[in-house]
Amino acid sequence: MRMQRSVFFISDSTGITAETIGNSILAQFEGVQFEKHRLPFIDNAQKAENAALRIKTRYAQSGQRPIVVNTMADPALCEIVATSGALMLDVFAPFIGPLEDELGTRHSGAVNRSHGLVDFAKYEARINATNYALSHDDGLSVDYAQADLILIGVSRSGKTPTCLYMALHYGVCAANYPLTEEDLEKLELPARLRPYKHRLFGLTIEPQRLAQIREERRPGSRYATLKQCRWELEQADRLMRQGSIGYLNTTHVSIEEIASKILDQFGIEKTMY
Amino acid sequence: MRMQRSVFFISDSTGITAETIGNSILAQFEGVQFEKHRLPFIDNAQKAENAALRIKTRYAQSGQRPIVVNTMADPALCEIVATSGALMLDVFAPFIGPLEDELGTRHSGAVNRSHGLVDFAKYEARINATNYALSHDDGLSVDYAQADLILIGVSRSGKTPTCLYMALHYGVCAANYPLTEEDLEKLELPARLRPYKHRLFGLTIEPQRLAQIREERRPGSRYATLKQCRWELEQADRLMRQGSIGYLNTTHVSIEEIASKILDQFGIEKTMY
Repeated sequence: MRMQRSVFFISDSTGITAETIGNSILAQFEGVQFEKHRLPFIDNAQKAENAALRIKTRYAQSGQRPIVVNTMADPALCEIVATSGALMLDVFAPFIGPLEDELGTRHSGAVNRSHGLVDFAKYEARINATNYALSHDDGLSVDYAQADLILIGVSRSGKTPTCLYMALHYGVCAANYPLTEEDLEKLELPARLRPYKHRLFGLTIEPQRLAQIREERRPGSRYATLKQCRWELEQADRLMRQGSIGYLNTTHVSIEEIASKILDQFGIEKTMY
Repeated sequence: MRMQRSVFFISDSTGITAETIGNSILAQFEGVQFEKHRLPFIDNAQKAENAALRIKTRYAQSGQRPIVVNTMADPALCEIVATSGALMLDVFAPFIGPLEDELGTRHSGAVNRSHGLVDFAKYEARINATNYALSHDDGLSVDYAQADLILIGVSRSGKTPTCLYMALHYGVCAANYPLTEEDLEKLELPARLRPYKHRLFGLTIEPQRLAQIREERRPGSRYATLKQCRWELEQADRLMRQGSIGYLNTTHVSIEEIASKILDQFGIEKTMY
């Protein structure tokens, strides 16, 4: 049997950058199984030595050379980790030189500042947007004056996590409204939503998948039957098409991708935090 | 006056990888102001030409060469964007060669698979964890049997966004409980929390900052006074110290960093989504 290849995401900060780029690169090697480990906050020699020991141990156990995806800034710490014998992939190194040439200035070595320091105004925007998403979740509050956008769709089509993701990551105030049986029967948007039609976006999902999700939530209910799911989704589709409301089928799409597509569609260029 | 330097994060998928690594690298050039643009889903020649035109226009307007942080897989699309004259930084290129040599296999070119395709089991873990965080937010439900961890702290110390972030990103079931005036006066954990002491983690914050946050929420209230904030925080600190509960001051720390530190502390090695 083929052994898994061990991968260590190492950082002097959160390790989010190392893990994000590492996952993207490793996904391009589909035939290989990776066993992933996160080693964040490696910011002194002692921690680096512990990390090196852990990697070396894995090397000895598996007989296969581990891979290190590294965003530590301090060359001395990188050297310590390299003593493990792992393949070292330094995430920032290839880009620093070209950028220093282009910008005519040296880099500070303050790696991962973007995740490490807090800009209060930005932090507040995220928190406020998260509070907004929470208070405007699932039709709780239907005052949409401040909404950057409003997601609509049948119950369990993925509206809540998408709104929370957009709030936490982009500081976008996203409300969501679950289309009710009444809305779906009448094929009409509720009056409270109509003034905000230009900010509406729909989420749909395949009926089988929806039934599965609902079944887990309310086993044996009418709500979870394929028939009910199919009817609700067909009516929702109709409602969105007749209202010329953009929509997206979320069945095979990650939360990140749904969020990116919606922001792209609305031309919202808020910076990711 | 010094012009801002334009940066374009370009991707054939969400652009999250390009933006994450791009922000980390650019943060190392503290003296330079960057004007950032996201161009996701550039997956055909027409879109690449539009992107190139937009970059070229910015180049002409600003007189400064834009920077492109690129995760597009298709070399033909990269060439089109490169006609803009921008400095092209290809995020994946430097790592593919060493990994192909190490793994003895070719890469598939299926860039950003990690963000593009959905593994239902993983998706469900995120959604379930998000639902858990929502139903166990702010002491709503106090049944903590399924909690991976429980954040405690005074009102507005950052518990809710941290729990949601851990749920959405790591599928971690994180509950949170706001310490009440009664808890703080008695210097006692509520009975419901005591069986789960090993899963508790505290968030604290500087009193000035807390007063500022609360003042925005309830202007002029006793709740928002510096005196009240200071008392609550002192009592909370005492409670956590006497209970040997780990805690973190969140004042100068981003949500990402708080989450990473907590997961690291609890030894939770769940993969980031």
